[in-house]
Amino acid sequence: MENLTYAKAGVDLKKHRGMHQIALNAIETLANKLGVVVHGLSGFAPSIDVIGKRMIVHVDGVGTKTLVLKKLGSMRVAGWDCVAMNANDVACGGGRVVAISDYVAMGTADEDVFKQVMDGLVEAAEAVRAPIVSGETAVLPGLLNGVDVVCFVVAIAAHEFTNRANRGDLVVGLESWGLHANGYSLVRKVVEERIGDYNKVVDGVNLKTELTKPTALYYDFLLKAIELNYVSSATHVTGGGWSKMKRALGNDLDAILRAPKPSKIFEVLLYYGNIDVSEAYRVFNMGVGLLLTTPRDKVGSLLSLANEMGFRSWVLGEIVEGTGSIRIELSWRSGESVEI
Amino acid sequence: MENLTYAKAGVDLKKHRGMHQIALNAIETLANKLGVVVHGLSGFAPSIDVIGKRMIVHVDGVGTKTLVLKKLGSMRVAGWDCVAMNANDVACGGGRVVAISDYVAMGTADEDVFKQVMDGLVEAAEAVRAPIVSGETAVLPGLLNGVDVVCFVVAIAAHEFTNRANRGDLVVGLESWGLHANGYSLVRKVVEERIGDYNKVVDGVNLKTELTKPTALYYDFLLKAIELNYVSSATHVTGGGWSKMKRALGNDLDAILRAPKPSKIFEVLLYYGNIDVSEAYRVFNMGVGLLLTTPRDKVGSLLSLANEMGFRSWVLGEIVEGTGSIRIELSWRSGESVEI
Repeated sequence: MENLTYAKAGVDLKKHRGMHQIALNAIETLANKLGVVVHGLSGFAPSIDVIGKRMIVHVDGVGTKTLVLKKLGSMRVAGWDCVAMNANDVACGGGRVVAISDYVAMGTADEDVFKQVMDGLVEAAEAVRAPIVSGETAVLPGLLNGVDVVCFVVAIAAHEFTNRANRGDLVVGLESWGLHANGYSLVRKVVEERIGDYNKVVDGVNLKTELTKPTALYYDFLLKAIELNYVSSATHVTGGGWSKMKRALGNDLDAILRAPKPSKIFEVLLYYGNIDVSEAYRVFNMGVGLLLTTPRDKVGSLLSLANEMGFRSWVLGEIVEGTGSIRIELSWRSGESVEI
Repeated sequence: MENLTYAKAGVDLKKHRGMHQIALNAIETLANKLGVVVHGLSGFAPSIDVIGKRMIVHVDGVGTKTLVLKKLGSMRVAGWDCVAMNANDVACGGGRVVAISDYVAMGTADEDVFKQVMDGLVEAAEAVRAPIVSGETAVLPGLLNGVDVVCFVVAIAAHEFTNRANRGDLVVGLESWGLHANGYSLVRKVVEERIGDYNKVVDGVNLKTELTKPTALYYDFLLKAIELNYVSSATHVTGGGWSKMKRALGNDLDAILRAPKPSKIFEVLLYYGNIDVSEAYRVFNMGVGLLLTTPRDKVGSLLSLANEMGFRSWVLGEIVEGTGSIRIELSWRSGESVEI
């Protein structure tokens, strides 16, 4: 059986990185021209200094997960996810959300779907205690085949947080609530071409239940952990999977990790899509939604905090001298290992 | 010949208003729960108080104009328009842009198109002297058939500007640079179904030239006019056409206007689409991109300022007691008039 990849599902991460680089260059050139400093440009939470504060401006969308959610009547989750993803991202930079703006685009006007999305947006906005200040609802016939749900957030960074791992740190992972909102182009290809139907139960896994799960909200946990100096870096595992942690490593550190057994939905996707496990860790969260690095003397406090706030967590490994790469030993595949 | 409308082109403004109302209700309920005041929620530039300043958070996209721009190889204009539209909007509320974030979504990764969009974004960002702080490039196979270009801006309002017309004010219009980025779903229907080709010259009008014109940037003009107290209200004529001015009228004023002859592209679209002229003023800018109300003793100064900054302008009419409606006499159609 031909193995499926993210590229075959229409998402070429190499081209994607190329576009990302074009954007970074453009942003940097502009900032230099204007004499403005954009802090942490290549990180999770780029910020500028505005009226004496560090202001983070961030944008992210739910992507093609909306195509699955719409099919399964769960568009409220799209609204929730959109705020949760952005809030998790800015909290990785120590930012508290002060304002949210939403962009909901669709091919044809659908009030019922829109209402569901708004309900989810409001629910998550309330959970992060931030107002939605404005929004745009765009009806774009010919351009969209479904609904695109995007959020922009403004956050204020309470204090400096460099978000860099240190040699000797331990790596702690927090459980995800499922796939969150990443890798759905590949998910769709596996389900639609190999399994055939979103309403099936496959090897005991109810696809509908698993694929409509919301994104875990790590926001309060992250802000607390950063405030208490329990962590040196925080990586929200989204597009790019575990490789996103490289941002915290720089060029002179490696992460040596041992991955826990992911929930069964991941195994089903890997099996039916014949997806390489190294590809999987670059596309999916594989059961871990947050990767943290922590000084060894803080690890106990960090694990307790996670537990108090309702998240299962694991010590996954450590940070050593290196070249910016991540080695993952797979506890659940008899010690097989991948480098990403 | 059947007349074309925005609804027949897939954009039902009534449903659109329905969704807008759902969003306003949701935003208001949330703000009340959180004890936050969102100022000017139904206006152009909703704002909140953050660290002692009034912060405007705004989002708008280029819509289906991108489908035409992509066909004609002018995606740089999509980037320009996106910033220009948002900057014009927030300047109508007296806001100075301090940060821009972009969201570019496409069905398949296309570095060349992306580069063009970024070039346009940077050009316009430089024109409004604001940094791009962050952005998201989303590749969404199955969801998009083209490229969606959206910007989010954060602005700080320099001083209070109520943006309400007063009885007795005169109405001044500033020329648009063509269609700007509104009504393109209807444009596409007219060109693709009635004319057949974007590369045609119709009745002396070069479609390609006209349909790839950028959005006029009124930003500096607006900030100056507001700072100097030359205007009581400013309406950026975008989605909704001239009817957008109703926000500045409230329930007790009417605007009595005399519309100048629009440039020929509008006449071509109306003729080939057999579009009702009242529909046209609710969808297109009809040659006027900015509608201002001004105290009578300031009108001379306002017209001079427009002229100095390179914009043709007209005194279009006046504000009288009424019920919030707009009457437009059409100088270019032998005195025919419409009410919107």
